[in-house]
Amino acid sequence: MRGLILASLLAAAGAAPTDVPPRVNAARLRQRIEALSVFGRPAGGSFADGVSRTAFSDADVAARAYVMDEMRALGLEPRIDPAGNILGRRAGSEASLKPILFGSHIDSVKGGGNFDGDYGSMAALEVIATLEEMGLRPRHPLEVVIWAAEESSYGSGINGSRAAAGQLDPGELERVQDGIVKADALRRIGGDPARIGEARRGEGSFLCYLELHIEQGGKLDRAGIPIGVVEGIVTIDDHEVSVGGFANHAGTTPMPDRRDALVAAAQVVLAVREIATAEAGPQVGTVGRLNVSPNAPNVVPGSVQMTVEFRDLSGEKVARMGEALRVRAAEIAERTGTEVVARFTSRHEGARADAALQSAIEATASRLGLRHMRLPSGAYHDAQMMARLGPMGMIFVPSLGGISHSPRELTRWEDCASGADVLLGTILALDRRSAQGAE
Amino acid sequence: MRGLILASLLAAAGAAPTDVPPRVNAARLRQRIEALSVFGRPAGGSFADGVSRTAFSDADVAARAYVMDEMRALGLEPRIDPAGNILGRRAGSEASLKPILFGSHIDSVKGGGNFDGDYGSMAALEVIATLEEMGLRPRHPLEVVIWAAEESSYGSGINGSRAAAGQLDPGELERVQDGIVKADALRRIGGDPARIGEARRGEGSFLCYLELHIEQGGKLDRAGIPIGVVEGIVTIDDHEVSVGGFANHAGTTPMPDRRDALVAAAQVVLAVREIATAEAGPQVGTVGRLNVSPNAPNVVPGSVQMTVEFRDLSGEKVARMGEALRVRAAEIAERTGTEVVARFTSRHEGARADAALQSAIEATASRLGLRHMRLPSGAYHDAQMMARLGPMGMIFVPSLGGISHSPRELTRWEDCASGADVLLGTILALDRRSAQGAE
Repeated sequence: MRGLILASLLAAAGAAPTDVPPRVNAARLRQRIEALSVFGRPAGGSFADGVSRTAFSDADVAARAYVMDEMRALGLEPRIDPAGNILGRRAGSEASLKPILFGSHIDSVKGGGNFDGDYGSMAALEVIATLEEMGLRPRHPLEVVIWAAEESSYGSGINGSRAAAGQLDPGELERVQDGIVKADALRRIGGDPARIGEARRGEGSFLCYLELHIEQGGKLDRAGIPIGVVEGIVTIDDHEVSVGGFANHAGTTPMPDRRDALVAAAQVVLAVREIATAEAGPQVGTVGRLNVSPNAPNVVPGSVQMTVEFRDLSGEKVARMGEALRVRAAEIAERTGTEVVARFTSRHEGARADAALQSAIEATASRLGLRHMRLPSGAYHDAQMMARLGPMGMIFVPSLGGISHSPRELTRWEDCASGADVLLGTILALDRRSAQGAE
Repeated sequence: MRGLILASLLAAAGAAPTDVPPRVNAARLRQRIEALSVFGRPAGGSFADGVSRTAFSDADVAARAYVMDEMRALGLEPRIDPAGNILGRRAGSEASLKPILFGSHIDSVKGGGNFDGDYGSMAALEVIATLEEMGLRPRHPLEVVIWAAEESSYGSGINGSRAAAGQLDPGELERVQDGIVKADALRRIGGDPARIGEARRGEGSFLCYLELHIEQGGKLDRAGIPIGVVEGIVTIDDHEVSVGGFANHAGTTPMPDRRDALVAAAQVVLAVREIATAEAGPQVGTVGRLNVSPNAPNVVPGSVQMTVEFRDLSGEKVARMGEALRVRAAEIAERTGTEVVARFTSRHEGARADAALQSAIEATASRLGLRHMRLPSGAYHDAQMMARLGPMGMIFVPSLGGISHSPRELTRWEDCASGADVLLGTILALDRRSAQGAE
């Protein structure tokens, strides 16, 4: 519905403008990323040593203060919402219009890199700085957002975009995570647990949400293409597989008599790979955790617990892979004389990027002379939550070697600049085009 | 050499005697096993709840005192050697002859059963009791031994038979095991660390060593055969396999780009099973321990460490299986884009049972009308150490369902009696036969 409205606005714009959009200051963008990198940098380290700037840590608190100072310098007047998100608004030329929302996050995983989140956040500031410098004032207000605690969001985190989408569980803030009550963690970064409900944004309260991010995978890097147009964020289904065999003496139990849980589990591991590669497509399947019991060199394994997850843009395909897992589990149980139970545990709903926004991003990249390709995001992003409230679009730039969540995470400075150019150009195009439709 | 001498003694005996050997008192043997079972029994439990009588524990100390009382009642005058072994000697009619050594152990694994070790120990006492009752005095002295700490012997234990065979490592008693310096543990059971070397027995200092034990596997039970004639104790080769892949985001790393250490490790698990079953025979291969890193549901496994052990009576076959493992590891590495290194870590030398003793046990079983079969022992026994010093023979009785090292360990009382009858008959046959040869 929302997508349709935006599509009609864009369609109304007629032929795409052929003028080349303005560009950000590439050197200044790099300086912003380097300046942010000192918060959470290992003692005595350099930029190449990455950051450990986990949400709510001292490094996170210091980095947030630094970013708010930068926002003030750009006239954004930052405020912290009750969920800890930092929001800075630049007025538009038409006061009644909905804002264009864009940004990312600055918290990192432990032992993370300087680009995941940081890049999109600093590029958002650089977009504002470029507009200021050029004296450009779009019709729509621009709202820069630095989401709180993105990296702790997977599963039951308390991250800011989940709160903004009204997806926090009741009582969630009373729970303890990493040894601290979540509400107390939230207070550390200026959030207000008592008013957390006020962080919720209304559906349709923004024209669209845009996020610029590193790919965190290797597709763009391998293809040598600087701009990725995200088709959507994958749906993830989690399963738990329990294998029950019989623990027995490794010396006295003949091979034919064994009910070896690990032999069965090994077949499950290979079946998961076969299921994920059985048809063409970007879907993935992973056994990431596997625990053996009793796990002693001289005992035939009695039981194995393992996790299986499947991801794809298509929730239907993800469900189909789960069904295939259950079929294979039954076959393996039969063949190995063990009990193999595959239990679906949870679904993390994905989100489709808005089709019109994908086209707008592509058109902007083309006008900038930048090659681009469509691809899904296999990772979670705050954009997943914003897609619940309005049209969502994401721009990816290459991660060298596909490495992420690592100090070795790296994106070429020229690609960083190109991505920010696309973000700026897309914002201007959307602002201009929507002028020809109603809101 | 020793085997040859004994064989010639036995061969000199000519035709096997056809008289039926005496039998032990089956009810009294059962009473002995039941009486011993109270030491280390779970509080409030019954016989069916098994025992936790780990070496050096209070339960072990109490059980040893009980067994020494029983030995005194049989006139055995028990003594504790510096390694903590309990030895009781019954004089022979010819003072110059070497003793026939027999016995087992009474320590258990944690959560163990009432038969592993206990059975052979109590049967040894019952053999002496029967001889006393019948007024029989063999020519050879009889020496009953209760070995110390058999269950902690695997690897770097301090068990008594290893000390008796001179196989303790220098400085071993200074090491800490289970939170206690081994020397202190040894003192708890009356051992003398300072004089540990004196526990060593001379090569050829006994006519032969006999041990009666439950099978701890399911072969006899499945075949419905009450007596197992042990061909030897298997050789064990331990290997460590390290798989090095690349830990990466489970969402953003496409299937073709993965270097998934667990997918490679799963293939190693299945290869080990294939190697062990590639040719007919009782050889076994086990992956008992497998640890994944980082072992997180949403991360492609970066590395896996696993143990592989192969067992067989033939050390040559065990080595061949290890060689096959290395070949398969290289193939799997090539196929999966990972590094797979199979490293041999240690060999636990097996021991062949003396051929003449095997024949003597078989002949005795036949005279008792008991069906028998030859089989290897896949488990370690004190007999493995004694085989270094003289001819060794072992008698097995069935374990119901092959279960051992479990409270559910069970052997039928009639089978317990049959095994003890064979032990008694074999001792008498050896004693009689050796009279016709020189020592």
